[in-house]
Amino acid sequence: MRLDAGAPDFEAAFAALVDARRDVDEDVSSAVTTILADVRARGDVAVAERTVQFDGHDLAATGWRIDRATCRAALDALDPALRDAIELAAERIRTYHAAQKPADRDSTDAAGVRLGARWSPVESAGLYVPGGRAAYPSSVLMNAIPAKVAGVGRLAMVTPTPGGVINPLVLAAAEIAGVDEVWRIGGAQAVAALAYGTDRIAPVDVIVGPGNAWVAEAKRQLYGRVGIDMVAGPSEIVVIADGDNDPEWIAADLLSQAEHDPTSQSILFTDDAGFGDAVADAVTRQLTTLATAATAATSWADNGAIIVVPTLADATPLCDRLAPEHLELAVADPEALFAMVRHAGSVFLGRHTPEAVGDYVGGPNHVLPTGRRARFASGLSVLDFMKRTSFLACDAASIAQIGPAAVALATAEGLPAHGRSVALRLGS
Amino acid sequence: MRLDAGAPDFEAAFAALVDARRDVDEDVSSAVTTILADVRARGDVAVAERTVQFDGHDLAATGWRIDRATCRAALDALDPALRDAIELAAERIRTYHAAQKPADRDSTDAAGVRLGARWSPVESAGLYVPGGRAAYPSSVLMNAIPAKVAGVGRLAMVTPTPGGVINPLVLAAAEIAGVDEVWRIGGAQAVAALAYGTDRIAPVDVIVGPGNAWVAEAKRQLYGRVGIDMVAGPSEIVVIADGDNDPEWIAADLLSQAEHDPTSQSILFTDDAGFGDAVADAVTRQLTTLATAATAATSWADNGAIIVVPTLADATPLCDRLAPEHLELAVADPEALFAMVRHAGSVFLGRHTPEAVGDYVGGPNHVLPTGRRARFASGLSVLDFMKRTSFLACDAASIAQIGPAAVALATAEGLPAHGRSVALRLGS
Repeated sequence: MRLDAGAPDFEAAFAALVDARRDVDEDVSSAVTTILADVRARGDVAVAERTVQFDGHDLAATGWRIDRATCRAALDALDPALRDAIELAAERIRTYHAAQKPADRDSTDAAGVRLGARWSPVESAGLYVPGGRAAYPSSVLMNAIPAKVAGVGRLAMVTPTPGGVINPLVLAAAEIAGVDEVWRIGGAQAVAALAYGTDRIAPVDVIVGPGNAWVAEAKRQLYGRVGIDMVAGPSEIVVIADGDNDPEWIAADLLSQAEHDPTSQSILFTDDAGFGDAVADAVTRQLTTLATAATAATSWADNGAIIVVPTLADATPLCDRLAPEHLELAVADPEALFAMVRHAGSVFLGRHTPEAVGDYVGGPNHVLPTGRRARFASGLSVLDFMKRTSFLACDAASIAQIGPAAVALATAEGLPAHGRSVALRLGS
Repeated sequence: MRLDAGAPDFEAAFAALVDARRDVDEDVSSAVTTILADVRARGDVAVAERTVQFDGHDLAATGWRIDRATCRAALDALDPALRDAIELAAERIRTYHAAQKPADRDSTDAAGVRLGARWSPVESAGLYVPGGRAAYPSSVLMNAIPAKVAGVGRLAMVTPTPGGVINPLVLAAAEIAGVDEVWRIGGAQAVAALAYGTDRIAPVDVIVGPGNAWVAEAKRQLYGRVGIDMVAGPSEIVVIADGDNDPEWIAADLLSQAEHDPTSQSILFTDDAGFGDAVADAVTRQLTTLATAATAATSWADNGAIIVVPTLADATPLCDRLAPEHLELAVADPEALFAMVRHAGSVFLGRHTPEAVGDYVGGPNHVLPTGRRARFASGLSVLDFMKRTSFLACDAASIAQIGPAAVALATAEGLPAHGRSVALRLGS
């Protein structure tokens, strides 16, 4: 799609782009409710039956767990260059997330009241890893490492192994990330097992990780019983680029998002119409040699856009309306544009920072809010695996100072036992 | 209920206490779905119709908004002592939450890669305030002040005014907290109006605040379209107290939770059976003079418990299983016990810190995880109104260092456009 921000019909066309729902609506809600109730009631038996039904293998024969030795063997069998790459990625992700660990607070104020907050990790977390095409080792690292950095004692991974087949890269990544348990189950039944627990699988406190519509719906229905990460939609990228970029580089960036899924979205804003044309041509050319061309071409045709703006500064308020998961600022001085951006999951600054480097080895998390959720949500972090306990301590002198106000408010709110519990401590 | 941790049937009885669901199950799910769809489709007209239906007044006659002058007048008309109390509470809440504002990060690592994170407030937030009995000014302060401290530009409050009647204390608190808009609407229709927007009401990014089953279900269904705070259940307190406490003080603390609702829960752990008896007697005695005795007596009879443990250290692992919203450590040296506690929303240290002081003027937030959710969730904070944008910047030298690993991983994951977008920048 080609849009010109100066055209009279631009606002209508852009508004349609902002409002487009790219999610595939699949109403699995009642089917998932049934599976959750079944696993809650019948535990492992229900999980095993659904695994035969959906994944086509018998857990009694294939085994429920993949043991540590198998993960270790998968790691040892890796091509050394690939192993080095995974280890570099893990190290950079670990370092970035270690700096996210929040500080405790503890201080005493002028009234003599001590107050503060103490952070602690959740005891256990579950990590969903899709089977098949979307079984990415990078996703294992990005979900597991923040949990381990947070100090989670037990990290249980579930992954479907359709037909019994396992992706060794995923096992190697689990080993590097320090995953404690690997279960060869998937779908809503695996999420239910993690949330409720079964005879074999102890329950967890938090469940994270990407999945299909069934997995997403199971997490949504269990939200509140366990903590979950944000429900994710199709991936997206916005590139803001001037005419001094190499069109081939920008075309590759747009395609790197488009190749994920037909529902992915890639949008270029540029102030140079000729450059926009050159990128469009480069996209067409690169598609001819891309192994993922079928997916990428559909995504680009259905959801891609090149939008010409008078100046790049005009792109930032439009970009804020999209609140994109990924935003590249491919200009010589990205700082000025970055200062104008309000809503984006992750930003890639300058011509030499393709979004894909952040998918693997940048360090920041690649699990990011999609579908305009960057207006209010953040990428996965150590905080998703921790919780904060606030605390307060008064002595006789400090309760005498602030207590009377509490009594007044409790009385006004019609809560006399609240008032009494404070009043009894006054003047004692 | 009286339990002795040494009794043979203790584990079964305590497990039943931990697993007890005190929520009133009210299946409003499909009714709420209908209301949300109706407000989305018909906007203000649907909101007005539901307001007649549920709140019994005609918005066209009573007006949709309560203007700033009315809030100001409510504040000016307050009893001066009460006004001072609200202002002290607001000031202490503001100070505590200001210290929660997270720091941005921006650094360059040994590979020459610049990485960091930038926090920013959401643009707008909605605050639900219940009408009738649970219309607490303290709740307005606790929900609104963190939003304003975060830097939220627009804070829209909705509150039902059954029969058109408004609680002036709530308006005064809204004025002190800096609420920008007050709408006299409630229920699922008000939550829908905030999430989708209508002709009159602009949509918001985050919706917080307590409400009945309809409000909670509306928030749950809209989770993901907007950010929400944790779904809240009945309130609860655990007190760990030795025999040196005044039984009257501890009885008042237990009743301060019990008077909220028949489904509230108050539990005392003590190592002194005689003290436990004295507290039970004091509860009975205090109930005779309590205006909220009907509610408090039901809560105490149905959900209250006094549990005798061999030593107070034995109470902390039991308390962790409850992961209570509020925990009082009523001992001379609360520090040692606090160090052993893993899961609690907020902790009140020492004999002179009744939980109720934290409801009003302590400073930390009184919106806390209930129903064992302190295992993974935290109290409301400034972070609920902010989001984090991570960023990354490579130059030609640093992409040359880390880029090859990204190419290797992209290739292994079968994502060639990812690899190409990085490879094009290598060696240039």
